[in-house]
Amino acid sequence: MNNYFSIEDIDSLPDWVSEAIEMKKTPMSNKTLGVDKTIGLLFFNPSLRTRLSTQKAALNLGMNVIVMNFTGEGWSLEYGDGTVMDQGSSEHVKEAAQVVSQYCDVLAIRAFAKLENREDDYSEKVLKSFIQYASIPVINMESATGHPLQALTDAITITEHKKIDKPKVVLSWAPHPKALPQAVANSFVEMMQRMDANFVITHPVGFELASQITKEVPIDYNQENALKDADFVYVKNWSAYEDYGKTLTDDPSWKISQEKMNLTNDAKFMHCLPVRRNVVVDDDVIDSENSIVIEQANNRTYAAQLVLKKILQNN
Amino acid sequence: MNNYFSIEDIDSLPDWVSEAIEMKKTPMSNKTLGVDKTIGLLFFNPSLRTRLSTQKAALNLGMNVIVMNFTGEGWSLEYGDGTVMDQGSSEHVKEAAQVVSQYCDVLAIRAFAKLENREDDYSEKVLKSFIQYASIPVINMESATGHPLQALTDAITITEHKKIDKPKVVLSWAPHPKALPQAVANSFVEMMQRMDANFVITHPVGFELASQITKEVPIDYNQENALKDADFVYVKNWSAYEDYGKTLTDDPSWKISQEKMNLTNDAKFMHCLPVRRNVVVDDDVIDSENSIVIEQANNRTYAAQLVLKKILQNN
Amino acid sequence: MNNYFSIEDIDSLPDWVSEAIEMKKTPMSNKTLGVDKTIGLLFFNPSLRTRLSTQKAALNLGMNVIVMNFTGEGWSLEYGDGTVMDQGSSEHVKEAAQVVSQYCDVLAIRAFAKLENREDDYSEKVLKSFIQYASIPVINMESATGHPLQALTDAITITEHKKIDKPKVVLSWAPHPKALPQAVANSFVEMMQRMDANFVITHPVGFELASQITKEVPIDYNQENALKDADFVYVKNWSAYEDYGKTLTDDPSWKISQEKMNLTNDAKFMHCLPVRRNVVVDDDVIDSENSIVIEQANNRTYAAQLVLKKILQNN
Repeated sequence: MNNYFSIEDIDSLPDWVSEAIEMKKTPMSNKTLGVDKTIGLLFFNPSLRTRLSTQKAALNLGMNVIVMNFTGEGWSLEYGDGTVMDQGSSEHVKEAAQVVSQYCDVLAIRAFAKLENREDDYSEKVLKSFIQYASIPVINMESATGHPLQALTDAITITEHKKIDKPKVVLSWAPHPKALPQAVANSFVEMMQRMDANFVITHPVGFELASQITKEVPIDYNQENALKDADFVYVKNWSAYEDYGKTLTDDPSWKISQEKMNLTNDAKFMHCLPVRRNVVVDDDVIDSENSIVIEQANNRTYAAQLVLKKILQNN
Repeated sequence: MNNYFSIEDIDSLPDWVSEAIEMKKTPMSNKTLGVDKTIGLLFFNPSLRTRLSTQKAALNLGMNVIVMNFTGEGWSLEYGDGTVMDQGSSEHVKEAAQVVSQYCDVLAIRAFAKLENREDDYSEKVLKSFIQYASIPVINMESATGHPLQALTDAITITEHKKIDKPKVVLSWAPHPKALPQAVANSFVEMMQRMDANFVITHPVGFELASQITKEVPIDYNQENALKDADFVYVKNWSAYEDYGKTLTDDPSWKISQEKMNLTNDAKFMHCLPVRRNVVVDDDVIDSENSIVIEQANNRTYAAQLVLKKILQNN
Repeated sequence: MNNYFSIEDIDSLPDWVSEAIEMKKTPMSNKTLGVDKTIGLLFFNPSLRTRLSTQKAALNLGMNVIVMNFTGEGWSLEYGDGTVMDQGSSEHVKEAAQVVSQYCDVLAIRAFAKLENREDDYSEKVLKSFIQYASIPVINMESATGHPLQALTDAITITEHKKIDKPKVVLSWAPHPKALPQAVANSFVEMMQRMDANFVITHPVGFELASQITKEVPIDYNQENALKDADFVYVKNWSAYEDYGKTLTDDPSWKISQEKMNLTNDAKFMHCLPVRRNVVVDDDVIDSENSIVIEQANNRTYAAQLVLKKILQNN
């Protein structure tokens, strides 16, 4: 494996999940693999879990870590081909990516959707430009349209907690005061199509995700109906894909309550975090024994560590 | 010891001070104690000495260090119980603290007083919330009302420099153009009550610190009188506790001059830094041989290293 | 060597360049030299190459690295002697430099020209104050008037690529939408006077660099004439020295095109980066085989590593 841009870079999902679960038992067992290797973490957006868990994963493998907040610490980047750079951007990604490749052995990049222009976001210009010009492996720490480290984490977490071979997994849209990217939802939907799961998406009309991602996955506009007999309830807000970047509604009736959880098959509650309590989900649900959000966040370390291990072994 | 929240977490002050002074002679003597352990430093406010000395202390013990400026790099946190999080805060401290606990072995946090609401500041909601929800030890790198790493530093420094068993120590308020927290003064006052010292506080009327902290410590509103025969003069501005967060005055007559130092028993001049020269203290005092502010700052490393060593040995 | 403030701190340039080129072949050959030593990187301005390459260099030598963005993470510094600090600055460089010296073994500092007052910038108050008050070696990571790590990099790069003993090197001014410091140009001009090169500077009238730096170096106001038979074309914008900090013109006719490169002796194209494409230089020049800007950036690591090695061996 060269890059970890999307979950398509996972060759065998069951093997990866098993290996990550094994690694979690003895996280220091490969602590010399990354010695004298440096990972550069480039952030164009805020980050808590990704920032810390990816550093922890790299440290567990003996790597050096260089963290850089591109916004503020570096130069604003240009992505266009042939641009006359007489405006705000000081450096072209062509130089930035090639140069950084010479100081690091692996790059990891976070660059959110701007939610202004769908074509622009879905072209993934930041991540794809770095991948194009970098001469070292690039890891996606959440790009405009995907969050594959989160999706691998989710696959690990569901595998650890499932009680039947093919659990019912529901991805439910939830209200939120701000317009959020579709990245987490997209990668989760892709992941659920690769796992052995009975998978349903539920959201209000107008919040359909990109059809090239949802494909044949059933969509139920009736949340209560979708939740019935669920083994896992994965909750996440996203803004509209069709009327791109719009919130359309923050209808509080879509919030996850204990009453709704009672419709499920004693389902586990999942969320990628950060989560707005009592807007997305009620306190009593996220604080219940069925909430596995903290364990889920913990698995971020092992997803990142597995990806790094694969890259180090391959390069 | 689990947490280092206040100087009450020091079980035996004389032992701690001796051990820190010993550690200063051979700072690398425990360089394997922290191997494969990670400290997370979370800053909600600026920091120079604390930022660098705590990192240095951790490195001296062989630890990995992850630094995060929460403001800007992460999500704004919510602390209230039951809040409907539809406003500015994106993440609840309940999740943040639990999650970070999974990526680190020790947390250290700086979160200054806001000086807007006394009850709010003195409830220590940031530090206490992290302590409540974290599953790993938490170190106070200056909270709303205390700075116990500074106070331990001060105990070490006074012990190193005292010529008699029970020196006279004067804490003097000084003028300052901005409203500053009471944290350093509070912890120093608490510390002096535990040390064998003849301790006096001097400040203008209206700058009384919290009585639950000053207790029986004599207060002298006449600075020159208080300074007489002092062995140590510890200078610090703070804003009012009663008329909370107000500066009331920046009366320049409270500035420490050499003339005032001449009233003392050849006293050592101390300040936690940063210090505004010629506002808080005259150049010739801070630049004199009796000024031990640089040595005092140096001892920040050994205070932090001792606290970390105690935590590592206990966990 | 104690400090690396300017290229005058290089005792024997040929030896340094040879040693850096050797080091590049086996960058990890001194990986224990810096064990238990800490470098503090203090940034008052943005940085990509310098930030990452200096960290990489330190890691290659086994050093610990502490990075601090002074603006934002620390306190605003005062530099004046005797200042009554009742305005914006919270800490005097006298304390900051002495204190930081106690937590680190080497300091590296970036502090750009403000371009408001020539005397102020050319006094180099930030770097010189740190050097004056620090008790550890200080490295210049680009100061108001010089960038000696870049100049050492450039000497290495030219030595690697030159085909004749005394190549013709042309430093050409280029247009730019913003006023930029003279630091890179200054250090390059100083360096070319120490190398065995046939060196010419070309720029529009009014962009003369400081005469105490250019000395006897020929200046040709006709760019095309200057470029004739050049073996290396080093391009860089700078603002005026005489009419200090002014841009005067951004005349696009000074941009480097392939047509202009055709006037040269198959010259290598150099730039310190970041570069504004199609403003400073056309895409087809910087993307051509004769462009060595990426290799040049790579050499930043070895210039920094050599300087650090010299300092560590000397202290």
